Amino acid sequence: MKNKIGREIPEEIIEKYEVYQGSFDKEILGRKASPKISRVKPGESKLIESLEDAIVKSGLKDGMTISFHHHFRSGDYIVNKVMDLIAEMGIKDLTLAPSSLTSVHAPLIKHIKNGVITKITSSGLRGELAEEISNGLMEEPVIIRSHGGRARAIEAGDIQIDVAFLGASSSDEYGNASGASGKAICGPLGYAQIDAEYADNVVIITDNIVEYPNMPASILQTNVDYVVKVDEIGNPSGIASGATRFTKNPKELLIADYASKTIVGSKYFKEGFSFQTGTGGSSLAVTRFLRNEMIKQNINASFALGGITKPMVEMLEEGLINTIFDVQSFDLVAANSVSKNERHQEISSTFYANPHNKGAAVNKLDIVILSALEVDTDFNVNVITGSDGVIRGASGGHCDTAAGSKLTMIVAPLVRGRIPTIVDSVNTVITPGETIDVVVTEIGIAINPRREDLIEEFKNLDVPVYTIEELKDKAIEVVGKPERIQYEDKVVALVEYRDGTIIDVIRKVK
Amino acid sequence: MKNKIGREIPEEIIEKYEVYQGSFDKEILGRKASPKISRVKPGESKLIESLEDAIVKSGLKDGMTISFHHHFRSGDYIVNKVMDLIAEMGIKDLTLAPSSLTSVHAPLIKHIKNGVITKITSSGLRGELAEEISNGLMEEPVIIRSHGGRARAIEAGDIQIDVAFLGASSSDEYGNASGASGKAICGPLGYAQIDAEYADNVVIITDNIVEYPNMPASILQTNVDYVVKVDEIGNPSGIASGATRFTKNPKELLIADYASKTIVGSKYFKEGFSFQTGTGGSSLAVTRFLRNEMIKQNINASFALGGITKPMVEMLEEGLINTIFDVQSFDLVAANSVSKNERHQEISSTFYANPHNKGAAVNKLDIVILSALEVDTDFNVNVITGSDGVIRGASGGHCDTAAGSKLTMIVAPLVRGRIPTIVDSVNTVITPGETIDVVVTEIGIAINPRREDLIEEFKNLDVPVYTIEELKDKAIEVVGKPERIQYEDKVVALVEYRDGTIIDVIRKVK
Repeated sequence: MKNKIGREIPEEIIEKYEVYQGSFDKEILGRKASPKISRVKPGESKLIESLEDAIVKSGLKDGMTISFHHHFRSGDYIVNKVMDLIAEMGIKDLTLAPSSLTSVHAPLIKHIKNGVITKITSSGLRGELAEEISNGLMEEPVIIRSHGGRARAIEAGDIQIDVAFLGASSSDEYGNASGASGKAICGPLGYAQIDAEYADNVVIITDNIVEYPNMPASILQTNVDYVVKVDEIGNPSGIASGATRFTKNPKELLIADYASKTIVGSKYFKEGFSFQTGTGGSSLAVTRFLRNEMIKQNINASFALGGITKPMVEMLEEGLINTIFDVQSFDLVAANSVSKNERHQEISSTFYANPHNKGAAVNKLDIVILSALEVDTDFNVNVITGSDGVIRGASGGHCDTAAGSKLTMIVAPLVRGRIPTIVDSVNTVITPGETIDVVVTEIGIAINPRREDLIEEFKNLDVPVYTIEELKDKAIEVVGKPERIQYEDKVVALVEYRDGTIIDVIRKVK
Repeated sequence: MKNKIGREIPEEIIEKYEVYQGSFDKEILGRKASPKISRVKPGESKLIESLEDAIVKSGLKDGMTISFHHHFRSGDYIVNKVMDLIAEMGIKDLTLAPSSLTSVHAPLIKHIKNGVITKITSSGLRGELAEEISNGLMEEPVIIRSHGGRARAIEAGDIQIDVAFLGASSSDEYGNASGASGKAICGPLGYAQIDAEYADNVVIITDNIVEYPNMPASILQTNVDYVVKVDEIGNPSGIASGATRFTKNPKELLIADYASKTIVGSKYFKEGFSFQTGTGGSSLAVTRFLRNEMIKQNINASFALGGITKPMVEMLEEGLINTIFDVQSFDLVAANSVSKNERHQEISSTFYANPHNKGAAVNKLDIVILSALEVDTDFNVNVITGSDGVIRGASGGHCDTAAGSKLTMIVAPLVRGRIPTIVDSVNTVITPGETIDVVVTEIGIAINPRREDLIEEFKNLDVPVYTIEELKDKAIEVVGKPERIQYEDKVVALVEYRDGTIIDVIRKVK
């Protein structure tokens, strides 16, 4: 059976899951999940001597679900450390539900092989682990969820976390935990807050116990069962890079120039507008171009959203941005700013992007700049599987911001090496085309035909405008039509849209 | 039947409720309540033209439960305004579940008489409304809950709020609401946060719509359904008094002197200690005396908790207090400090005092100073019914802080007018004696015999020490034995202990 955007979803998946019906078409019913009520009495200590004791005390058993956050990115020591111990303790058949996994998590492969981990849900997978999973390592397909989708899933009880192991660069002995100070500083713990609220058992893991009370805290004592001190929670150099470099790549600069002109030429670029840009070369360049234009036209932004970088912090400090909503800091400048500037606000993943609350921040976005591995002529976007069909990315906030923002722009080169970016049909859909408005390449832009208003508005724009088919043809002119990737039938991952429906599946590569 | 502390609880109450078993003896089972999942889509507006429209949109119907907060204290316009409208609209049989009610809420009497309100739960009742209820106005007994107990009850689903009407001195059109700025400034909205999280429908009522995003916010957009602008939400002079006066009453100063000496002479007065004092004359004087002693001995407090007053803010600014945990500001200096000083932290009622979470702030208290209308020889404390048996107060955080704190001190004059404060048996028990450590009067202190350590420790204290019976006898020597209050059988209020058990009942006065 094909879902609403024509993706083939196998029968056995349809029996277990709803399929994608449209970006806001799924009906919402029901009530939030109910975490266990636990009491910590006065005088009781939460400090546990060792990680092993904490695992024992948490009551972790075969078949349970455990979670982690990915704020330490490629500097993370926590996931591997905890999983190694759990494996040693002989606990099996666990569901791993981190906010995301990175290339440092290759050691999980052995725990999957040994049956310690039997299910995974994550925003993304990279490196060896991703490769092995794409090659059929797991029996159960991984469920790929966006950041907003994960918050929704936890709130709705689709993910029921038994034990959350949450790293923090500082914590007091009662569990008030923060990522804003300490050796392994990462800034906000926005993806971990929902775990702390909904998990039945919460263990804070830190290398830095500070005096009570550790305020302001990202995770509050009222949600924490245990606190463990370890020697190291992560490698600071892998957690937050010190500096964000400005691209000198001419193609990226050209894309950024067209993207900026499109933004500035739109009705959305006006006093009090809001925006989210990412960390790619083009995105950072857009931020810089926008800044110049804002100064020139004396326009200020009400808020900037997202993963936050140094250029945004500078604009906050210059007064060009009124408020930063930061779910995750991407560099040390951003990580350090959170605790220093009241207008640099930490937000949780549900506040950021949950589609099923009373209005996430993405709903208030005017403009978002997103990247793509592929875009197809239906404007569907792939950010997760490479040109070989192997998983090598993450869903992130891609489909969340695309659905929320008034002007959703994809920046991508027409081709990468010998591979076209604009194609007939993407390998994997993370973000449905109905939520994409403009695709920006180095030769010009394509506007989604659904946005007749923009087609009209951009008629006099100083940017070449093509149809998406024209862009696709131009890509093929350059590199030729790529061969289709060969897949087997086996489904290795389900791509869940932010509302909980299945928008696509990823199959085992041949 | 008598409960564990010998209070007579009628059969019909025992059939419906658990009775008090000891301050930490009730077993905790179960899971948290599950509020409704609601979605606000991008582009949807939450702004409602009128309060009446908001009531209609909220879906309010006969038999539902509605809530309010009491941060506007005697300046509150919201409760009466909303209830008048609801009555006009013909909605009946409502349960009113505000965090507390004050003397300005006498207009509710007519809505009770007309059947608009048929049940009430509140921290307290005062003035005419309290008097009428004590005289049997309502068929169903009011349930008196402490601040921590209310948070617990909402989290446990004992109070299921259908619609919360929450006043805020500023809000943006998407519902990010704050009490820290605007005309009707009140500081934190700590008692309202749990309503926003758990109510199925949340209406923000403000007289001050500000630009999006209104950050930092006490209540977040993700929990808000509607925002209504009205002309006035409260009378600023009734909300927060401008200044806190220092008592010149010699009796109060003597009590404060003894209380301070007791604190300073205890093992708890040391670097990093924590404390909560109240707003009474003696309490404020204790704060001042403590400050002097802290400077003298070079001791700093880790945190101060509670309803917060100017003297505490000054100590924060002097560096004598590291962090203030503020659930409610009692004066304008405190209200203004919250948004200015990062170490002046707003907290929710569940963080403050909920006995059934993973550790509220009261659990970390070293010293609390509390007032009393009466204390009995079992150290039970009454802060709700007057010497005529009529309700005239509130449970507040009394039993919460008493249970949490390592040293719980009651400050009270031996007699008030012709009425003894230390008695054989209090009219009404709000706080059980097992959680009270020391009673301080103007003639000296009495130590709870359960605290053998303190009896030993305070042997050389420069404060007269009596048994509680001696204090009681001395009170009677002065004013004679008071006549027992005459009650009828009818129960007008149930006093719920913070854990949800019934610790006492209040009967109709004759």
